[in-house]
Amino acid sequence: MDLKGQHILSASQFDKKTLLELFKKAQEMEKILSNKGQSDLAFGKVMATLFFEPSTRTRFSFETAMMRLGGRVIANSDMVKTSSTMKMESLEDTGKTVSQMADIIVMRHPEAGSVGKLAFKSDVPVINAGDGPAQHPTQALLDVYTIWKSFGKLDELTIGMVGDLKNGRVPHSQCELLKQFDVNFIFVSPEGLKMPREIVGDLQDGGHYVEEVSELKVVISKMDVIAMTRVQKERFENEKDYEKYVGSYVLNNEMMTKAKNNAIVIHPLPRVDEISTEIDTDPRAKYFEQVKNGVAIRMALIAEVLGL
Amino acid sequence: MDLKGQHILSASQFDKKTLLELFKKAQEMEKILSNKGQSDLAFGKVMATLFFEPSTRTRFSFETAMMRLGGRVIANSDMVKTSSTMKMESLEDTGKTVSQMADIIVMRHPEAGSVGKLAFKSDVPVINAGDGPAQHPTQALLDVYTIWKSFGKLDELTIGMVGDLKNGRVPHSQCELLKQFDVNFIFVSPEGLKMPREIVGDLQDGGHYVEEVSELKVVISKMDVIAMTRVQKERFENEKDYEKYVGSYVLNNEMMTKAKNNAIVIHPLPRVDEISTEIDTDPRAKYFEQVKNGVAIRMALIAEVLGL
Amino acid sequence: MDLKGQHILSASQFDKKTLLELFKKAQEMEKILSNKGQSDLAFGKVMATLFFEPSTRTRFSFETAMMRLGGRVIANSDMVKTSSTMKMESLEDTGKTVSQMADIIVMRHPEAGSVGKLAFKSDVPVINAGDGPAQHPTQALLDVYTIWKSFGKLDELTIGMVGDLKNGRVPHSQCELLKQFDVNFIFVSPEGLKMPREIVGDLQDGGHYVEEVSELKVVISKMDVIAMTRVQKERFENEKDYEKYVGSYVLNNEMMTKAKNNAIVIHPLPRVDEISTEIDTDPRAKYFEQVKNGVAIRMALIAEVLGL
Repeated sequence: MDLKGQHILSASQFDKKTLLELFKKAQEMEKILSNKGQSDLAFGKVMATLFFEPSTRTRFSFETAMMRLGGRVIANSDMVKTSSTMKMESLEDTGKTVSQMADIIVMRHPEAGSVGKLAFKSDVPVINAGDGPAQHPTQALLDVYTIWKSFGKLDELTIGMVGDLKNGRVPHSQCELLKQFDVNFIFVSPEGLKMPREIVGDLQDGGHYVEEVSELKVVISKMDVIAMTRVQKERFENEKDYEKYVGSYVLNNEMMTKAKNNAIVIHPLPRVDEISTEIDTDPRAKYFEQVKNGVAIRMALIAEVLGL
Repeated sequence: MDLKGQHILSASQFDKKTLLELFKKAQEMEKILSNKGQSDLAFGKVMATLFFEPSTRTRFSFETAMMRLGGRVIANSDMVKTSSTMKMESLEDTGKTVSQMADIIVMRHPEAGSVGKLAFKSDVPVINAGDGPAQHPTQALLDVYTIWKSFGKLDELTIGMVGDLKNGRVPHSQCELLKQFDVNFIFVSPEGLKMPREIVGDLQDGGHYVEEVSELKVVISKMDVIAMTRVQKERFENEKDYEKYVGSYVLNNEMMTKAKNNAIVIHPLPRVDEISTEIDTDPRAKYFEQVKNGVAIRMALIAEVLGL
Repeated sequence: MDLKGQHILSASQFDKKTLLELFKKAQEMEKILSNKGQSDLAFGKVMATLFFEPSTRTRFSFETAMMRLGGRVIANSDMVKTSSTMKMESLEDTGKTVSQMADIIVMRHPEAGSVGKLAFKSDVPVINAGDGPAQHPTQALLDVYTIWKSFGKLDELTIGMVGDLKNGRVPHSQCELLKQFDVNFIFVSPEGLKMPREIVGDLQDGGHYVEEVSELKVVISKMDVIAMTRVQKERFENEKDYEKYVGSYVLNNEMMTKAKNNAIVIHPLPRVDEISTEIDTDPRAKYFEQVKNGVAIRMALIAEVLGL
């Protein structure tokens, strides 16, 4: 693995070997977190967070990761509203400019490809913290890290993905990483929100078993991983379709009785109605633990990218 | 005193013994401030500040306190505007989520009870930095700490409170803490803005002398502490009442000639017209020193809550 | 040089000796930057950044400088929008209040003279990070530091300033500093945007050669320093004048063939059309290096002002 000096723009940058090395590094980071809470690995390093779209959760995770590595953070949580002169300049110039001050840049932007533009002339590594519908590679890393930690492996697992599989960048990126391992896929979505054909085809070409259904209850018992995602009401063609979804896709105690005893439930958060709060205390619910895992995996990634 | 791991939601949590121990700890913190300016007590600890209502003064005070303890800060100074996805989720989920990253949370919100909601599922201590009309416990702590520092005691004092005693959470919280000591109260307010009957009754039941008047000049000579508060013009029923107030409640040099030589003047700031700038250099004016005391008492509180 | 405890409000505060000592200090700071990236000179010191007008570039530069000195930062990047109670109070009170918590204050504000008001009652040094049309002393410092670094001297140079010389505070402040040295000035601007008469007169009274022209191409070969500035379209009286400007003042490869081999190009950024991206790789282009120099000179200034 040599991520030193690399921009992190897409989940597709991570091959199997790199992923597993990164996960082991993240476990070392968890030891720092549970001991002193902070190392001095990144002493003298400054991270700039440039958020052109607000995301407290993701920004806090990156900033916490940098601070717990011993580095410092300069932050702009609202680039669009607060930086009038920067609006006049190209993203390339902004990247070049900020890279004269900081050692690493973390950026979020509503437009696909925008983070790549900022990275183009930057003299320091840029990490994509979400560029609209396109990529959010560290979310995918923390999802798969959570699976790896829970099962001690990524092979011989059945991964269920539930919700809006058409529009969500989260399930797409999960497939990107998981297809490198020996896993089966079960996709559960309303008819109009199915996983894009090219992704399904890509998985099948790679020899993966893929099953597509529209009801969770008939397949949940086969899943090792139940990867939930939000479904936005406005994605449905009519109210009736939405009502049907609400009834059949919600994860609650009753539904969980059908799931395996050692299955895990993951979710990128925030959850709205798709996961009932009654399962929060179910030991299979891993969505809050994921937040903690997100700090560890980002610490590992920052350390690698900075060559620490 | 064992505040370790406790949420700090209300001034009523602090009994006499806890208060006095906290004040002694704050004095130790002042030594750090006047020596190196920073300790490493909170090394490896991260504070998240979540402000759903802007308050630069209070946020700066908490963040300075954490930094001077050697800890780090992740900040959101405008949760309402900058965090669209977090608006979708319950305060309980936000608390649970942020508590996976930070070691302590400081929150301000315009609604009474909201900080308690966020604390409900949090895995780390939450400090209330003001929940609307309800509570702002650290403001009360710094007010009373200032009195204690000035007189070396909290007994045998006459506390004057001046201004809008009906709507202000500051005088209410001051009473909450001061009623535990042997003090007399003199309340000075316009007729329509008197201290709520239940608070007056509570103080009288506790054996306190309580005097209520509508003119400051007739009672100021009896006060050891002159606790001023803002009066918002719109609280008055008519312009005439307001004009009367402006004339009779303003603290200026002339009024201060009637006050005791060792009296002190406190105010939560910002002051508008109720304290003339001409008394800023009067040694009895303690309202800017209070800001410094606020950092020390918050350092003490954070250290206790984190068990440092 | 004794800047310890001083407010930094205007470029005119820096005499020749102070400037040169500051530049040598900035070079020491560059060694910190290229070695460990951070010192512990400012351990225990807290900087408050109060931006009443957004400026990510300038705020990031000050915050990076403070962090790389080992200090901490409490930041408000949008004082106008996020601090309703502070709006009620005078700038003098805000300065007095923040100075009870922080060791140094950096402020930007759209109104001339506002930073001086905030500094008036502050108990700690205040640095002006731009007060509207009036002053932005650290920008001038980094411009002149860049010239000094490039030529190893500030005497016997011909300084060209190009663009809107009437309204820009940048060229005015550059003149303020450079007039202390043995330099010639060539001012290139449209007729309606010429350098103010009082500045030209002041330079001529000081014995400086001053040439004023309206076309860059006829004088660029004489310049050691080509100091570009933005011209805002709305400054022109009509579209035709603007079109003429765009054609004749843009710095591109063709224009640079006429410039000296060891000339340097500086610009405060952001650039829009006035510098073509094709010269970014020209070794004479120093505008991105200026950003790095800005961190070093601000580290030097902060260290001096805090007496470190």
